[in-house]
Amino acid sequence: MTASTRTWRFAVNVTPKPGILDPQGKAVERSLPHLGIAGVSGVRVGRRVEMAVEAADEAAARAVVGRLAGDLLSNPLMELFEVEALGEVAPAATAATGARG
Amino acid sequence: MTASTRTWRFAVNVTPKPGILDPQGKAVERSLPHLGIAGVSGVRVGRRVEMAVEAADEAAARAVVGRLAGDLLSNPLMELFEVEALGEVAPAATAATGARG
Repeated sequence: MTASTRTWRFAVNVTPKPGILDPQGKAVERSLPHLGIAGVSGVRVGRRVEMAVEAADEAAARAVVGRLAGDLLSNPLMELFEVEALGEVAPAATAATGARG
Repeated sequence: MTASTRTWRFAVNVTPKPGILDPQGKAVERSLPHLGIAGVSGVRVGRRVEMAVEAADEAAARAVVGRLAGDLLSNPLMELFEVEALGEVAPAATAATGARG
């Protein structure tokens, strides 16, 4: 893109809503005794999607991630998501990536 | 457990190792133009597993989570994991949960 954009990294954490059955989490809990692990409960298995976003500023980048998370990465009936900022990608790294293109 | 244990919450973030193909991430990237989303790249889809751990101290709880992450929740050949501390569960909440059992 143009020289005026910068790049940030984000993660979207998607988890089953409280009260929604989570068969994968239950499967993990049933495996614990076989591993000799005690004291672990309330296991919930979700997804974590990491990405880089090029935009004019961080607020614009975060808005793109929020839209992507709500429209494509999560099922709003059964899942919650949260957007986690992972920091800006160093301009040098961005420039090096651009030079290859 | 006994009154001397406390409860912490943790998340395990599992992501595909750099260089390992990630078909789910590629599928997300291919869907972006249909959603009118631009500027997103390097999408990697992993798992996020949240849990509560009862132990004598936080270091012991974290050790249990690390073992679970390495032995059951991730494939060490293809995936990386990181353990994220989500804080201690308030003692009152723990007591209330225990009272139901």
